[in-house]
Amino acid sequence: MTRNQYDLIIHNGTAVTVNERFDIIEQALIGVQKGTIVTVAKWEAGVALPEAATAIDAGGGIVMPGLVNTHTHLPMTLFRGLADDLPLDVWLNEHMLPAESQFITPENVKWGTQLACLEMLLSGTTTCCGGYFQEDSVAAAVVRAGLRAVLAQGVIDFPAPGVPDPALNVTHAGNYVDQWLEREANITPSIFCHSPYTCSGDTLKAAKNAARERGVLFQIHVAETEAERSACLQEHGATPVQYLDSLEVLDENTLVVHAVWTNAEDIDIMRTRGVKISHNAESNMKLAAGIAPVPDFVAAGLTVGLGTDGCASNNDLDLFTEMDAAAKIHKAVTRDPTVMDATTVLKMATRHGARAIGLGDVTGSLEPGKQADLIVVNADRPHLVPMYAPHSHIVYAMRGADVVTVVVGGKVLIRDRQPVTLDRERILARVGEIAAEIKG
Amino acid sequence: MTRNQYDLIIHNGTAVTVNERFDIIEQALIGVQKGTIVTVAKWEAGVALPEAATAIDAGGGIVMPGLVNTHTHLPMTLFRGLADDLPLDVWLNEHMLPAESQFITPENVKWGTQLACLEMLLSGTTTCCGGYFQEDSVAAAVVRAGLRAVLAQGVIDFPAPGVPDPALNVTHAGNYVDQWLEREANITPSIFCHSPYTCSGDTLKAAKNAARERGVLFQIHVAETEAERSACLQEHGATPVQYLDSLEVLDENTLVVHAVWTNAEDIDIMRTRGVKISHNAESNMKLAAGIAPVPDFVAAGLTVGLGTDGCASNNDLDLFTEMDAAAKIHKAVTRDPTVMDATTVLKMATRHGARAIGLGDVTGSLEPGKQADLIVVNADRPHLVPMYAPHSHIVYAMRGADVVTVVVGGKVLIRDRQPVTLDRERILARVGEIAAEIKG
Repeated sequence: MTRNQYDLIIHNGTAVTVNERFDIIEQALIGVQKGTIVTVAKWEAGVALPEAATAIDAGGGIVMPGLVNTHTHLPMTLFRGLADDLPLDVWLNEHMLPAESQFITPENVKWGTQLACLEMLLSGTTTCCGGYFQEDSVAAAVVRAGLRAVLAQGVIDFPAPGVPDPALNVTHAGNYVDQWLEREANITPSIFCHSPYTCSGDTLKAAKNAARERGVLFQIHVAETEAERSACLQEHGATPVQYLDSLEVLDENTLVVHAVWTNAEDIDIMRTRGVKISHNAESNMKLAAGIAPVPDFVAAGLTVGLGTDGCASNNDLDLFTEMDAAAKIHKAVTRDPTVMDATTVLKMATRHGARAIGLGDVTGSLEPGKQADLIVVNADRPHLVPMYAPHSHIVYAMRGADVVTVVVGGKVLIRDRQPVTLDRERILARVGEIAAEIKG
Repeated sequence: MTRNQYDLIIHNGTAVTVNERFDIIEQALIGVQKGTIVTVAKWEAGVALPEAATAIDAGGGIVMPGLVNTHTHLPMTLFRGLADDLPLDVWLNEHMLPAESQFITPENVKWGTQLACLEMLLSGTTTCCGGYFQEDSVAAAVVRAGLRAVLAQGVIDFPAPGVPDPALNVTHAGNYVDQWLEREANITPSIFCHSPYTCSGDTLKAAKNAARERGVLFQIHVAETEAERSACLQEHGATPVQYLDSLEVLDENTLVVHAVWTNAEDIDIMRTRGVKISHNAESNMKLAAGIAPVPDFVAAGLTVGLGTDGCASNNDLDLFTEMDAAAKIHKAVTRDPTVMDATTVLKMATRHGARAIGLGDVTGSLEPGKQADLIVVNADRPHLVPMYAPHSHIVYAMRGADVVTVVVGGKVLIRDRQPVTLDRERILARVGEIAAEIKG
């Protein structure tokens, strides 16, 4: 290796690269130029380090790709723990929808999103994907925080925050995408139809077409509950996946979220169309929606990422605990302890998650040519000692709080657990005020 | 209230008392004398605090009973992450048993136990219950750490570390109990039969009698796997619970661990005999053992505590994530989001857990007369904001790393996340050396 001048190097850590070969490199050197990873190599202790504008000593910890959250609703941090342990319809109709209609203003969305970004960064997430309303405010807040994100304007056939006339929902979403296409390097706009049961067939087709014309990701909650599946069978004589396929909205640029109530035929359709899956284990468990057949998705070769869902149904944005839950729930349900092994689950939270949201060439692994989206995780805390296999610890023992340093596109956003771009005290204070109003 | 002189007060926090009425007291004052809680009361901000030798400002956080881990194997921290994602028999026979026979020496057990105590304290556990071999070394290490514990010498009909001749296993356990009875205020000795399939009927009866004569808790893994249940039905014509009942080892001083494969008749037997249950959700999930019918246990009025199991099968000792998992898995499996609500689960991790291991009058809640076993948890971290209901956050959002202060019997064992009684650096270094030998 020639002696390069780097903008940033990270050294003295074990790199869990999550590259194609799943290389784990002890005493690794990661070199970054102009926000891009250019070097991932072994660097023996004692050898002089290459010159770099900034050098981060990983302190013997783990260096790994930043985590990719493939499904969330950022401003819903405002409703964290507002209503738990309730039937889904009561939770949605009596708590969430009234709270949303009253409190999802551009100003509140800004602060809820900043809180979400702060929480995500502090727990090692560098890329998120999701959708909501007032998405223009969401995107502006994410830009400020510095994360990478695929952010969708929501589409639903009811009056929604910022879109009082549902006849304009697709137009509104298209305009949002036009405003954000190629505006900020870290923001990829998208369109999110809420679900097959809250959007008409015409809306679904129009929204997918609006996304297709603009070359952006189309997202949709699909087959989350058994009730949704039953109603779809009754109304359309087809499963939700079959119904969406009949509308021609399923393709390789569609992200199907949840996919809990899917059968072998549905899986075959999704495989054939090349759709991507966002699996939200903790949300599905807490809302008692059911358990998606994720080992079957993996066996079919589908690309699966992990998502936390919104904070009103989880109740956090920590992908470390999400990995742990996803690894364990499927073992329990299939009664097979070998499914969803640590390597498979870690790929879902990084490499495959990035691919699922259309950023597979951009992020999700430590490889030359990818953006420098990476985290340093402390490895000498008592709950992480001893360490026989780093990837096992990442899935089964590490927590968001073990993350020390977070870098997105070569920029340090968390240093020694302190946010660089976000004003922690101000965010917590403002959200506290908003929560006092919500509590009433 | 009169103005008392206290040894210790904790103020400026919200007390989640987990008393019989589940009182939550904002701006609470907890007063401690001679290691015992004597005052739990509202204390308005601005009013002068009572005199106390030590005052802990909870900083607006949560003050709650220390968590009670009803099942673990402390020295198995040494094997954390050594073997994952394997069938149970391969994991046990090819990895755990060989590692135990080679490395479970009194010296290694001492360091593994100290590491376990450090991890437990740093994640808010003040009381643990479990069993292993070389338990004399375990107990000595726990005394040094200062936790409260019910610690059992293991009994198994095979040669075991420290007990090469299985014919002496019950004698050895009885001697261990005699040595530790009323020796240290915080240590309650106990006897642990590994299981109905690794101990003969005679061993089970003799061990229970040894425990009964000494008035100590008898612990046993029961009905962990379907294979165990099938083999028991074949060999004894009875379920594991029925079989143990026929041996007269089930009574109110017996802790049944796991109880995954139990039916309505088993539950009725356990209720009638007054046995207590330790539920280990994460271990059962990760090892694909199955899912215990815990909502049925609760409905039957059984006392249920939570346990992490050993670090080789979880892979941590964090009861906060255990609460989260226990709350969610049963919702997913029963398809009922109202079961295992936050209040029920928090009680299992505190009040009911203490009762399950025979310490219901000693610990598990913030009430006058109980030992001052309590923790202060930070409430203004981004993943805990906003907070509408403290008990929801404790179960669904808090993590071990949010614990700031830990007190056992009135003694501060963790102050600002720093251990007072344990030498963190020395423990991590020694365990690192032992792990290098284990890795080979």
